[in-house]
Amino acid sequence: MTTLSETIRGINTGALRPSEVVAAALDRLDATETDIRAWVRVDRAGALSAARELDSHDSRGGRSDLSAEDLPLRGIPFGVKDIIDVSAQPTECGSPLRRGRIAAADAWIVDRLRQAGAIPLGKTVTTEFAYFAPGPTRNPHNLTHTPGGSSSGSAAAVAAGVVPLALGSQTAGSLTRPASFCGVAGYVAPVGHWPTTGITGLSHRLDAPGLIAATVDDLRLVQAVLSGTTTSPDADAPERARLRVWTATELGDVEQPMRDAVVRAAAGAGAAEADELGWAGRTPALVEAHATVMAYDSARALAAEAKKPGQLSEPLNELLERGRRTTDDDYHAALSLAAGARADLLAVLADADAILGPAALGPAPRGLAATGTPVLSRPWQLLGLPVLTVPGYRDAAGMPLGLQLIGHPDRVDRLFTIGQRIERHARETASPAGRATA
Amino acid sequence: MTTLSETIRGINTGALRPSEVVAAALDRLDATETDIRAWVRVDRAGALSAARELDSHDSRGGRSDLSAEDLPLRGIPFGVKDIIDVSAQPTECGSPLRRGRIAAADAWIVDRLRQAGAIPLGKTVTTEFAYFAPGPTRNPHNLTHTPGGSSSGSAAAVAAGVVPLALGSQTAGSLTRPASFCGVAGYVAPVGHWPTTGITGLSHRLDAPGLIAATVDDLRLVQAVLSGTTTSPDADAPERARLRVWTATELGDVEQPMRDAVVRAAAGAGAAEADELGWAGRTPALVEAHATVMAYDSARALAAEAKKPGQLSEPLNELLERGRRTTDDDYHAALSLAAGARADLLAVLADADAILGPAALGPAPRGLAATGTPVLSRPWQLLGLPVLTVPGYRDAAGMPLGLQLIGHPDRVDRLFTIGQRIERHARETASPAGRATA
Repeated sequence: MTTLSETIRGINTGALRPSEVVAAALDRLDATETDIRAWVRVDRAGALSAARELDSHDSRGGRSDLSAEDLPLRGIPFGVKDIIDVSAQPTECGSPLRRGRIAAADAWIVDRLRQAGAIPLGKTVTTEFAYFAPGPTRNPHNLTHTPGGSSSGSAAAVAAGVVPLALGSQTAGSLTRPASFCGVAGYVAPVGHWPTTGITGLSHRLDAPGLIAATVDDLRLVQAVLSGTTTSPDADAPERARLRVWTATELGDVEQPMRDAVVRAAAGAGAAEADELGWAGRTPALVEAHATVMAYDSARALAAEAKKPGQLSEPLNELLERGRRTTDDDYHAALSLAAGARADLLAVLADADAILGPAALGPAPRGLAATGTPVLSRPWQLLGLPVLTVPGYRDAAGMPLGLQLIGHPDRVDRLFTIGQRIERHARETASPAGRATA
Repeated sequence: MTTLSETIRGINTGALRPSEVVAAALDRLDATETDIRAWVRVDRAGALSAARELDSHDSRGGRSDLSAEDLPLRGIPFGVKDIIDVSAQPTECGSPLRRGRIAAADAWIVDRLRQAGAIPLGKTVTTEFAYFAPGPTRNPHNLTHTPGGSSSGSAAAVAAGVVPLALGSQTAGSLTRPASFCGVAGYVAPVGHWPTTGITGLSHRLDAPGLIAATVDDLRLVQAVLSGTTTSPDADAPERARLRVWTATELGDVEQPMRDAVVRAAAGAGAAEADELGWAGRTPALVEAHATVMAYDSARALAAEAKKPGQLSEPLNELLERGRRTTDDDYHAALSLAAGARADLLAVLADADAILGPAALGPAPRGLAATGTPVLSRPWQLLGLPVLTVPGYRDAAGMPLGLQLIGHPDRVDRLFTIGQRIERHARETASPAGRATA
């Protein structure tokens, strides 16, 4: 994978032109897509034309009215999960019910990246309405394994080295899980921090847009562009991180290599404190409350679609049916539980920099009929906190093992600082074959 | 008013001892309280004892196990709105229904300040359950005028120079309005960013804890302590601010001196852009949606109290009755409107640093039977965004005129930077009598 930071350096020094970067992305796409199947639609002509337009802003090219500062992502091609609108292209949401539905305008997040000089290369595969029913995408690390979902195509396209950046979203574990399975870095913004305008969602209480890139460094750069911050990467770097470690074993059978990766990451973060989180007694109820809120909200968000059950998958019909059966009282009880738990966790995070835990139960499961379980994301997505998925560790077979860092919405910078340390540690302790033996 | 920053400097250089600071606060309280009536209960013995304990951490005093960095607010006395728990003291919420109800533990925000070395001096007057029915507090700038509410005592105690810091909260306009009326600085944290543990609230969707201090500089310091950030105050300081100006005239009769103050502040912020916000067509519906959500949630939060209407004020009975009549559908429609508006406003704030508008329709109205209208806060509190109230401007009679800055939850630092500029401008353009002629 070429990183976004390397590409930007190349463009800014004049060693690379945006049109060359886009052409290389298309070449790589052609070389991998038959295997990976990450893309729903590729806008070759549009992307190349936008790139050539940006070539003329080149430092060698004469036009100097727009500087690197004005276009911090100049010439960076990116993939867009197919629940997110790109102007004049269809948003099909992985469902026949939305086939050919053309978007009138860019989603906020796409518009924002375009303004920064990035170029949408095309739409990536999503599961049906970002829920469970998988698309055709395969895991680049082993084609017989799932890439995870629902942001399947975005994670796989970055992992395959086609694009240095792709957009995803998370309602349960839709970004954290595919990032972990595909060995790439993921960032889920705090719920409500970035506009979801132009994104087909399931729950306005749970949906959050997010980013997938090759490294945490890259994510940090794009996060700053989207949040409009100018804080330098090192402005907030405590010498020693204070972590709360969450083993997650109360929620499922966390595999041994993943458990090992958590322990190694805690050491790699240079943690001054790495105490047990001590929430094992609470997360099961949060998982259940998350499922209640998601079902209730989804039934309302997809009320029109619910009238055509024959065109929906069985898991989605079940979700919507559960949502219709959920009473207002149960819904409010779940939200109330969430509010209390959020307050308590924010108090924990006032004395700690982040919660470190496994991003998934283990590496990507074998098979393409399902995308794995989001159970390890549900408690935190219910609380709406920022989540960073850190890649770098692998199991003995070379399959990626992602870790998640959950942080305080006021201190996203801190989350990135710690993620970068863990990522560096994973890289430095990788075996010569490029694999960390966990 | 002595500022918090000055006091901390005095303590850190050894010129002041915490016990001297607390004793001076108590003296000032005794000299002003007969007029102002800001306090429900003062913990003289507890505060003095805590201060003497902290004296021994003095740079001159020998104990060096806790540095200024460990106790960034050492010896700072603060007031606590009487809906916020202080361990072993009653939390009476301005209501006979809660008389003598002792809190078992500190609220999160009180505990956090205590850990930083600050000292709770006592409980300040709140309106009944932080809604409309006023307590006895008077405006320090003119005793015949309301201090605003519901954080009446906290705003008045800071304005009277008793404490450099006080805690408040906001569900509609409960902090922004009294800060404006009393000529002090106010900060309402983004909804959900600080735990509300130990605070008796009305709505977990709208309630936000907040701070009142003499200056924006002081607020920034305490905000950093509470959010655990270490970013330097100048880490994020754009040369020119990009403002969206909101005249608010669609929501009420904004008085001329207040309109003038907004224009002067836009200039004082060094704004490169000061475009009209252009939301006049939208805010009335947001005000209505806010009232719907607040009523619905309050009826549930105060369900036990609602059974004793004889012990509640008429306005509160009306609010709870409205809440009981509000249907689930109306409630969800209001929340849905809020979610859409929040996304749209965040998009505006991606290209602007803050929205600048009047914090209230004008200066504090005459009379103590009502606390003024929160209408100018309702739209923004519904969206859950951070709000900074900036003092400094005054009308011809010398009554304070506060401005509000509404910002992006990812860029609270930016909000403070701009607020500090406006505050400095107001100070520099004040007439020799210490009054800006607006």
